[in-house]
Amino acid sequence: MKAEIIAVGSELLTPDRLDTNSLFLTAHLNRLGIEVVRKTVVSDSLDDIRNAFREALDRAEIVISSGGLGPTQDDRTRDAVSRLLGRRLELNDSVLRDIEQRFRQFGRKMAEINKRQAMVPEGATILENSRGTAPGLWLESGERIVILLPGPPRELQAMFETEVEKRLARRTPAVRLHHRQLRVAAMPESEVDQRIAPIYTAYPEVETTVLAAPGDIEVHFRIWSADAVAADHRLEELQQRAALAIGASVYSKDGQTLEEVVGRELMLHQATLAVAESCTGGLVAERVTRVAGSSAYFLGSVVCYSNELKIVMVDVPADLIASRGAVSSEVAVALAEGIRRRTGATIGAGITGIAGPSGGTPEKPVGTVHIALAGATPTRERELHLTGDRERVRWQAAQIALDMVRRYFLEGPSLRANGKG
Amino acid sequence: MKAEIIAVGSELLTPDRLDTNSLFLTAHLNRLGIEVVRKTVVSDSLDDIRNAFREALDRAEIVISSGGLGPTQDDRTRDAVSRLLGRRLELNDSVLRDIEQRFRQFGRKMAEINKRQAMVPEGATILENSRGTAPGLWLESGERIVILLPGPPRELQAMFETEVEKRLARRTPAVRLHHRQLRVAAMPESEVDQRIAPIYTAYPEVETTVLAAPGDIEVHFRIWSADAVAADHRLEELQQRAALAIGASVYSKDGQTLEEVVGRELMLHQATLAVAESCTGGLVAERVTRVAGSSAYFLGSVVCYSNELKIVMVDVPADLIASRGAVSSEVAVALAEGIRRRTGATIGAGITGIAGPSGGTPEKPVGTVHIALAGATPTRERELHLTGDRERVRWQAAQIALDMVRRYFLEGPSLRANGKG
Repeated sequence: MKAEIIAVGSELLTPDRLDTNSLFLTAHLNRLGIEVVRKTVVSDSLDDIRNAFREALDRAEIVISSGGLGPTQDDRTRDAVSRLLGRRLELNDSVLRDIEQRFRQFGRKMAEINKRQAMVPEGATILENSRGTAPGLWLESGERIVILLPGPPRELQAMFETEVEKRLARRTPAVRLHHRQLRVAAMPESEVDQRIAPIYTAYPEVETTVLAAPGDIEVHFRIWSADAVAADHRLEELQQRAALAIGASVYSKDGQTLEEVVGRELMLHQATLAVAESCTGGLVAERVTRVAGSSAYFLGSVVCYSNELKIVMVDVPADLIASRGAVSSEVAVALAEGIRRRTGATIGAGITGIAGPSGGTPEKPVGTVHIALAGATPTRERELHLTGDRERVRWQAAQIALDMVRRYFLEGPSLRANGKG
Repeated sequence: MKAEIIAVGSELLTPDRLDTNSLFLTAHLNRLGIEVVRKTVVSDSLDDIRNAFREALDRAEIVISSGGLGPTQDDRTRDAVSRLLGRRLELNDSVLRDIEQRFRQFGRKMAEINKRQAMVPEGATILENSRGTAPGLWLESGERIVILLPGPPRELQAMFETEVEKRLARRTPAVRLHHRQLRVAAMPESEVDQRIAPIYTAYPEVETTVLAAPGDIEVHFRIWSADAVAADHRLEELQQRAALAIGASVYSKDGQTLEEVVGRELMLHQATLAVAESCTGGLVAERVTRVAGSSAYFLGSVVCYSNELKIVMVDVPADLIASRGAVSSEVAVALAEGIRRRTGATIGAGITGIAGPSGGTPEKPVGTVHIALAGATPTRERELHLTGDRERVRWQAAQIALDMVRRYFLEGPSLRANGKG
């Protein structure tokens, strides 16, 4: 089965915005055995939208759009599709009540323009929006299915998962996409590929993709197959062999993020974490606390951007900063040990470095970062020389700090026996 | 003048890859006065490519593609376009010599398949590739211009800048895109639109777009015009009127982010900021320190996720947490005043709340957030009831905290006179 995706929105034709909904939609459609054969971005113009849907319906059985369902004059997807399919738009009382209700719930009065969102083409099925006011729409025309989804990613994603997936699953054939992955921390893409290429080339039926972000590599293995058992077996074998070849840098086989894996390990060992971070500016804390329930193992962080705060809040000796510099191995260790002592955490992490663009010197160029980890075992410390701009240096430093916490727990039962340290 | 962009490549129809070349191309085309009216992603199939070009040439004067010019069997853009335009493909000796030369330069022998890259449609102009082997191609057909560029961004970008831009500049009219914007903090999209719709509808020649993120709205005004002075004048007038209608919630007229504006205000007033944040988990600090040079005004943050840290690091009285709860107006105030006292910052911000998904109660549901700001004036405090998932609640809370810092400086000279507080 073939699908096309249409992203509606003039802003998506500017240099400022990219349609990213299509990645989510493609992943979910593939799993249902539906191949995406074309993606189109069109403006908010009624004619452009109508033409894009007309052409797409000539080629594909399923056409899914995102955007253009909001309350404003610019939101014309409903109108364009109704006209194309020759359906009248009618005010749907039940949808209108839902929208009014949602506004009331937040103590606001519905603006008149929001009524537009309650206009529904004849014969359409309404797809409930649990995260916003614009409902989605499911229309059938002959053998074709047209699905109109809202543009905001969190609304689109929730709607697809709760309203669209089950309806599509009833229509789709037995050939499905089967998928496994590996996530790898702090290993260069070329090294990952060098280690696993001899393995994955022996699985020509599997499509292997290596995606690289700074300090974070994803390896995806995919097979289209009607035989789920055989496909899973092959994928599992390949995933295991590749994971062995990469070694301890593999942090996840199920798509968990590094901060989720760190959280899981901390929970498992009934351990707690506290951080004193300078150049990462709160990014480590922010990533750890993205995970729901992180208050069970994360005590907190001191973002000690000034030297004063390093001294006052984390007990870094002033003369150590004076003699070694704020960006030094010694200060990283003092930060890690200081925050651990102050908070009573099982593990204390300390990070100090130069994110740039300014602040570098010949001896300590931009990208110099020291990370220390204090725990039940002797404090360990790493000196990094990271490349890239400010954002990239900060991201990589946070990534390696989190990976050091993960690896802390790889070290065997002697450590675990220390429990809460 | 109108252009369409076609990205060729089956990998761009998987969940892993996004066409980003179109952003670069759009920015450069817009500056030349060329509007991008559609973007399409197609597979490597000969038919799909040919159809996409055929349709695009029906609509737009310029069609630019990326990808499908490499040496492998999958690279079919040359073939597809030659067939569509009825041009024979011929081996071009000069291109072939260039490719052979490039291989020799890197000490490698040219593989036979690379000859494919030297096949040029009759009548095409060759666009030199300074960073790779695949040359680009410029074809004209009647009034239409077809430009085939390689897929790798660094090859495409260099080729566009050195080979394409000058050729297009000769063809394009004086009409250019002119642009202004407003950024608005913490006002719902519908309210922004209600306030400015009566204004922008009186400027039918201006294309107005309202882009909404949680707690952050962008309003873009664009005119295509050959008269730069008149266009700028109209845009400025509209921008001013819209800004007046929205009021103090407008934080930027030049595209600066909220954290950049906050940084600018702090610098301007020689003030410093310190934060004690709980539910935002470091996000406020992380956003403030995204800005290069933020160490000049940002002292740091205590991410006091545990009650213990609120007490020990920010001097929140333990009995206050016991009597009012960690998520309360009183604790927010204690956090703001405590971090200000501890660090000596001009402004101390305190944030405490329930980001969810768990932790809510009937009295304090998920999304309840208290933010306090302590400075030279009496401490102010806001109670928020935010909606959405964990990420959204955190983002909005950080947004409003930053906006409160910005508004602190809107309050007139009496405050400013207090200087460093």
